[in-house]
Amino acid sequence: MPYGIVTEQSITFDTDIRLESGRILGPITLAYETYGELNADRSNAILVAHAWTGNAHLAGRYSDEEPKPGWWDAIVGPGCLLDTDRYCVICSNVIGSCYGSTGPTSINPKTGKRYNLSFPVITVRDMVRAQQLLIDHLGIKRLVTVLGGSMGGMQALEWATQYPDRIASAVVLATSPRPSAQAISLNAVARWAIFNDPTWKKGEYKKNPKDGLALARGIGHITFLSDESMTAKFGRRFSAKDGLFDFFGQFEVERYLNYNGYGFVDRFDTNSFLYLAKALDLYDVAWGCESLEEAFEPVQAPIQFFAFTSDWLYPPAQTEEMVTALKSLNKPVEYHLINSPYGHDAFLLEHETFTPQVREFLSKVR
Amino acid sequence: MPYGIVTEQSITFDTDIRLESGRILGPITLAYETYGELNADRSNAILVAHAWTGNAHLAGRYSDEEPKPGWWDAIVGPGCLLDTDRYCVICSNVIGSCYGSTGPTSINPKTGKRYNLSFPVITVRDMVRAQQLLIDHLGIKRLVTVLGGSMGGMQALEWATQYPDRIASAVVLATSPRPSAQAISLNAVARWAIFNDPTWKKGEYKKNPKDGLALARGIGHITFLSDESMTAKFGRRFSAKDGLFDFFGQFEVERYLNYNGYGFVDRFDTNSFLYLAKALDLYDVAWGCESLEEAFEPVQAPIQFFAFTSDWLYPPAQTEEMVTALKSLNKPVEYHLINSPYGHDAFLLEHETFTPQVREFLSKVR
Repeated sequence: MPYGIVTEQSITFDTDIRLESGRILGPITLAYETYGELNADRSNAILVAHAWTGNAHLAGRYSDEEPKPGWWDAIVGPGCLLDTDRYCVICSNVIGSCYGSTGPTSINPKTGKRYNLSFPVITVRDMVRAQQLLIDHLGIKRLVTVLGGSMGGMQALEWATQYPDRIASAVVLATSPRPSAQAISLNAVARWAIFNDPTWKKGEYKKNPKDGLALARGIGHITFLSDESMTAKFGRRFSAKDGLFDFFGQFEVERYLNYNGYGFVDRFDTNSFLYLAKALDLYDVAWGCESLEEAFEPVQAPIQFFAFTSDWLYPPAQTEEMVTALKSLNKPVEYHLINSPYGHDAFLLEHETFTPQVREFLSKVR
Repeated sequence: MPYGIVTEQSITFDTDIRLESGRILGPITLAYETYGELNADRSNAILVAHAWTGNAHLAGRYSDEEPKPGWWDAIVGPGCLLDTDRYCVICSNVIGSCYGSTGPTSINPKTGKRYNLSFPVITVRDMVRAQQLLIDHLGIKRLVTVLGGSMGGMQALEWATQYPDRIASAVVLATSPRPSAQAISLNAVARWAIFNDPTWKKGEYKKNPKDGLALARGIGHITFLSDESMTAKFGRRFSAKDGLFDFFGQFEVERYLNYNGYGFVDRFDTNSFLYLAKALDLYDVAWGCESLEEAFEPVQAPIQFFAFTSDWLYPPAQTEEMVTALKSLNKPVEYHLINSPYGHDAFLLEHETFTPQVREFLSKVR
């Protein structure tokens, strides 16, 4: 059942956090939403962590007039995978983002101006450090699970390794322990597209530098899909509006990337995009450790992993490395390789492929 | 043995060709080079077809001072795979390119100005149509073989299907019968990078629009390599010159793509890049046919195919489609899948992986 009406919430912590870079960030505002009620001993909370361009609006609608529900509405609600009759589901926007949490678009209290590029470089570990302030504030000692895909999965991994006694389980979908050189280079050319846009002005724009950001998103979009799904959806069809031999004529897939890229400009901030891209590239679950095994040594909670066969951004082999490391440590771990043509985005598009397994996994969490 | 000194040659045909688009192009200038001597009955000629940003300077040096030899020097020379004691090897620059053949940088005789975007959209079939003028001019009735990788392989396929009685064999490396939606989209974002550059001026630039072209090349570069080879070469190493938490700090792989992208600006014309990208995307060996089988019906010459395991731009399955179609027609065909980590570029980097097989194949050509 759909969740229904939800309210935007926000909290500001008048505290500084020391970032991985050594820089200090504070105060910290976090936008968040909750679905379902916390029980008396606050032991029924689930945290859902969002990906790169996601936000706290996980499910439900702000009003009956809102045309679309939250970004993962299908899995949250009464009787849904994350059953709001049973759990209190929380989603908070990460720091560095542009959806209400402290990020480059926020006002720097020291200068009274937008941070822009004076915002410090942040890591996924920093995002989770901030998130933990919220969980403390809500009086939650231990989360039933932290669940997320892509950058959301990286956050779940940070909870499992940095705050092992604060979670009873984790569900990690389509995630890399450390993105490969190819994944980094695809983000690198996306950054470059923005740096090339003269209206970006080293981050001091008034209006989003649209051509650079749209192209950056177009590049990212390719990495979220798969050759198989693009072939099924577009094949080699040429736009019916264009002549095949027009210099500016487009293939359907080209038109689609263009259209979606420019659509993205209306909903995401360019500097946030850059800061979060950097956090993705810098991500390494074994940050400061010699090996995955060393990184996973503190893990207490069972972790359930999902990888998707056609995900070439964070290919299954990268998830399997983590599973192997955890198994070698005799940590409780579960792994499912899902056969899907939808590439990296499969975790958002095909929730029915993992719902039964996650339901079963959560039923056993103590 | 290295080939030695070679001379640039050029010929202008005072003739028009009708392009696939229906437009007329003429006169046609082709830059070309030859290595070895034509025999008395002109039956010992081999044509090597170059890829996207290649040129006619296949092998040898223009003078002892030239720092680097031609782009595929290792396979051309006395005793080499393409043995110049035995064969006369020819390489010609394709139309649309910027290395001496008619292309967007040429002067349009009708206006006295550079074509720029008034140059017609061309296809690989058009390139071969022009190439055939050169083969006629040299008095060659039948080529021993046409050999090429990537766009060069597409040209070999056009010879095999459009001029079946003019070749005795073909060698096709790392080639697609029709690039997939993903390959098209990667070229699409490269185009977009150029269109975004305000100094491109719809093709009416005086100086190459460097930021756009460098980025476009950077995107292309990613597709020529593989995750495996990038990981081996760069891994996740961060540039030693940059701070890990500098906003503009770069990974080594990022710096490499940047450096090479800007290097490319000095050696290739932006409009040519765009026209040839379009020719690649439009390429379909079964152009105007219902199926690969119909397209291959006219083939007479044996074709030897090579695909490379880590080539994700034109993956082996695409070559295998062609092999299957030719086999179903009982056409003479040979296929080798080469295990290589070097991605699409393997055909240029690892000639030793296919030299013995090509040598054997050529020894049997009648």
